[in-house]
Amino acid sequence: MALAVAESERVRGSTSPNPPVGCVVLDAHGHAVGFGGTQPAGGPHAEVMALKEAGVKAQGGTAVVTLEPCAHYGRTGPCTEALLEAGIKHVVHAVSDPNPRAAGGAERLRKAGVTVESGLLADEVSKGPLRAWLHYARTGRPHVTWKYAASLDGRIAAQDGTSQWISSETSRKEVHDLRAKLDAIIVGTGTVRSDDPALTARDADGIPLPRQPLPVVVGRSDLPVGAKLQHTALHLRTHDPDEVLTALVAEGVVDVLLEGGPTVAGAFLRAGRIDRVLAYVAPALLGAGPAAVLDAGVSTITDAVRLTVEDVTMSGPDLRISAVPQT
Amino acid sequence: MALAVAESERVRGSTSPNPPVGCVVLDAHGHAVGFGGTQPAGGPHAEVMALKEAGVKAQGGTAVVTLEPCAHYGRTGPCTEALLEAGIKHVVHAVSDPNPRAAGGAERLRKAGVTVESGLLADEVSKGPLRAWLHYARTGRPHVTWKYAASLDGRIAAQDGTSQWISSETSRKEVHDLRAKLDAIIVGTGTVRSDDPALTARDADGIPLPRQPLPVVVGRSDLPVGAKLQHTALHLRTHDPDEVLTALVAEGVVDVLLEGGPTVAGAFLRAGRIDRVLAYVAPALLGAGPAAVLDAGVSTITDAVRLTVEDVTMSGPDLRISAVPQT
Repeated sequence: MALAVAESERVRGSTSPNPPVGCVVLDAHGHAVGFGGTQPAGGPHAEVMALKEAGVKAQGGTAVVTLEPCAHYGRTGPCTEALLEAGIKHVVHAVSDPNPRAAGGAERLRKAGVTVESGLLADEVSKGPLRAWLHYARTGRPHVTWKYAASLDGRIAAQDGTSQWISSETSRKEVHDLRAKLDAIIVGTGTVRSDDPALTARDADGIPLPRQPLPVVVGRSDLPVGAKLQHTALHLRTHDPDEVLTALVAEGVVDVLLEGGPTVAGAFLRAGRIDRVLAYVAPALLGAGPAAVLDAGVSTITDAVRLTVEDVTMSGPDLRISAVPQT
Repeated sequence: MALAVAESERVRGSTSPNPPVGCVVLDAHGHAVGFGGTQPAGGPHAEVMALKEAGVKAQGGTAVVTLEPCAHYGRTGPCTEALLEAGIKHVVHAVSDPNPRAAGGAERLRKAGVTVESGLLADEVSKGPLRAWLHYARTGRPHVTWKYAASLDGRIAAQDGTSQWISSETSRKEVHDLRAKLDAIIVGTGTVRSDDPALTARDADGIPLPRQPLPVVVGRSDLPVGAKLQHTALHLRTHDPDEVLTALVAEGVVDVLLEGGPTVAGAFLRAGRIDRVLAYVAPALLGAGPAAVLDAGVSTITDAVRLTVEDVTMSGPDLRISAVPQT
């Protein structure tokens, strides 16, 4: 399953609105003979890719897959039938499919005499490569990660507006790698005016990475003439997070990185549309300057938006804190 | 040495302006036969306490001590002479004494035929129980730890001023335990007006712990009539951190906890008089409300007060971040 998870990580960011699934096919002796990850929308699913590589060696073998194989006819045929045709006798999947249209795969396989087990590394998969897609499958909304970089005292820039760089080179590189694994990045018109970002995923030399997320600007005002995002971004002239997310679903977006400034972050927080907070906290003090979030709809301490810390790691000299809102 | 460190932790907070030293005496066979920690100022040092417990068993034995034994006559006789009289043949100490008046202990012992080794667990001791005293011995100023509790977005209270409780019960208990190990706690007159703190170290039931730090209020305005600190605190009518620290040295204070609000924290930061930052960061977002520090003398990002993270741990649901200013 760890190999299947690696396959799924490899294709993460290129499969939406389909889930980035990974599959490893073992032959009847338990040797890994085929590896596959979901191809871009309209292309074959992970199981089909792995079966193709395995060929006749799949006969009597096992398919290890991060998500329950689908049993429905979409743009591609059901994976259950492909597994049966290849002579697979055992299926092990991490996570069951919450999507009622696609679910029933395990049942279909069992009826055809295949043994099916589920739950292996389920937590790792559902918090990792399938996190955004599972959220989308359950709620119909893209998963939103709000990422920001701030000083220890919560400032995203100094008094004079300078912010390059609060966080370390290591943290900035991590964010570029993350951008390449997501479908879209959202900023507000305020960030376009103040920072003129390109919102591309680049390597350490500034060269664009092969996969690029959709840049999205939200807000009613026009973008400044000559802004880097003027001709590349989807500009949604609204402040309503739900209008933004509905428009993004229509674009096939499942996994969103919110890099907006304090106003946009506040709007998403008030609407309850932040699913994960990813804070890069630099060990520095500024004592003045803008805060990471404004107007979260909280006026007294008992109304604070409480989070649960999922993970804390060092990113160079900075702290990288991942937290999720308490429900 | 780990046992000696434990002895020193046991007396931490009760020895200033003397260092909280721990000592273990081993007999000639290497068995621990005496334990001691420095007694309150004017009382016996750690070595004398441990020798007293060991009695004649110290003959031909080893003294393991967190600080180089002193060789000077103060309010008590030199520890070197006590060790020699007891027949100690070997001395192992963690940290050498930076105080020129007391130093020379190792040399004196060697001249008398004792083998002396140093450096064992030196890092643990110098960052732990002897940290404040070593700072004081080197600079002549008390060591200042600035402690604050804030939300992830850097707010110490909500928009309406409520702040009870941003941090968790676990974090608040840790702070009370810390208070009992320090000499003084500083707040500003603003904190007295807004929070009316008692600044006592209490247990989970609110019962005062046996050791209490000196409560100190800084600032020019009078304390409100009836404030809990009105008759218990040392009120220093100044905003100058160096005037505050000089007054505290006169009180025998070596280890200070700064719990002041954003204005006092800013004054100490500007003056370069914060030696350690201890931040309890609650995984919560407020989006409005006062920041932990105001006016740190930073107007642009390149002037940020840069810190190095020493340690990050979870304190219940909160993050506990210890960081020191880069020099």
